[in-house]
Amino acid sequence: MGYNAAPLERLIEQFAKLPGIGRKGATRLAYQVLGMDRQEALEFARAIEEAHTKIHRCAVCQNFTEDDVCPICTGETRDRATICVVESPRDVTAFERTREYRGLYHVLHGLISPMDGVGAEQLCIKELLVRLNGGGVREVIMATNPTVEGEATAMYLAKLIKPLGIKTTRLAYGLPVGGNLEYADEVTLGRSLANRGEL
Amino acid sequence: MGYNAAPLERLIEQFAKLPGIGRKGATRLAYQVLGMDRQEALEFARAIEEAHTKIHRCAVCQNFTEDDVCPICTGETRDRATICVVESPRDVTAFERTREYRGLYHVLHGLISPMDGVGAEQLCIKELLVRLNGGGVREVIMATNPTVEGEATAMYLAKLIKPLGIKTTRLAYGLPVGGNLEYADEVTLGRSLANRGEL
Repeated sequence: MGYNAAPLERLIEQFAKLPGIGRKGATRLAYQVLGMDRQEALEFARAIEEAHTKIHRCAVCQNFTEDDVCPICTGETRDRATICVVESPRDVTAFERTREYRGLYHVLHGLISPMDGVGAEQLCIKELLVRLNGGGVREVIMATNPTVEGEATAMYLAKLIKPLGIKTTRLAYGLPVGGNLEYADEVTLGRSLANRGEL
Repeated sequence: MGYNAAPLERLIEQFAKLPGIGRKGATRLAYQVLGMDRQEALEFARAIEEAHTKIHRCAVCQNFTEDDVCPICTGETRDRATICVVESPRDVTAFERTREYRGLYHVLHGLISPMDGVGAEQLCIKELLVRLNGGGVREVIMATNPTVEGEATAMYLAKLIKPLGIKTTRLAYGLPVGGNLEYADEVTLGRSLANRGEL
């Protein structure tokens, strides 16, 4: 747009690359960073660099970690017979927050999506099969998102895993807790009816 | 929250410091940065550093610039008899985009706000008075936001400037172009009625 100094413009462009941040939001954030004192801004820059330098994928589950093998994979209290397969490291955090899951994870780093040109070979599926062939796993929980891509990926994996004689399960569909029947779409409502449980 | 590796956690905290970004948004952004390739992430970090290193305040109008004196203040086609006083560098960009203003600017870097502990002495008011005392200015346009703080700051400045024999004006209030009468608050509607113009 030409009204901003070039280094500011470059910073705006960097922010605008992030998902969900448009040109206006990026401008606001860039000005905010300029308004920080120098020390703070350098800390911000260093946090980005450091996160990229120190964090890489766990050799086993492919989650982000500082170590060769992440604390979950090495955790002594974890149930090593269950693997929860998720799309991204964020999903691991979401499950850990429930404090209800004690098994291991496997992060695919994506979902099969022909529309976006993402095929099975771009996901961390080989690494999962290596783990399963290593033995000791009794159940694989498909915990991909309840979307077309999530479903397709779960189906694809289930077909690969079943021949290994390992149980494959899928997260339950239903109403979100605290949600409102009125706002539930008919597919969700239909599923929650079909999967109703006894009280 | 303890589920993320420490460098990731630090990056999330950095994003969460930015205005309008909560913990969830910051987490999403930090993961996005981790997902960039290393080159891209380093560019991002460098853009922050560089913006802070290369950009400082214009010696005259206090707007952000790479030079000692910004291109607007040195611009040969600018009307040097008019100064538009704004809260922040973002406001300068907003006016420049209109392509209707050819005068100079003065950036206060804040508004008087006793609630937030911001007094007149923290704003770039001395610098404005130096410019006005330098002579040649015929009009100062108060272009602070139409908020309590913006009004108070405009009033305060007008009192300081009037004794210098310089005309002080204020932006017009009225309906936003493309807006809807129905959604206008009564104060705005009242002002737009009072300031009605002949067709």
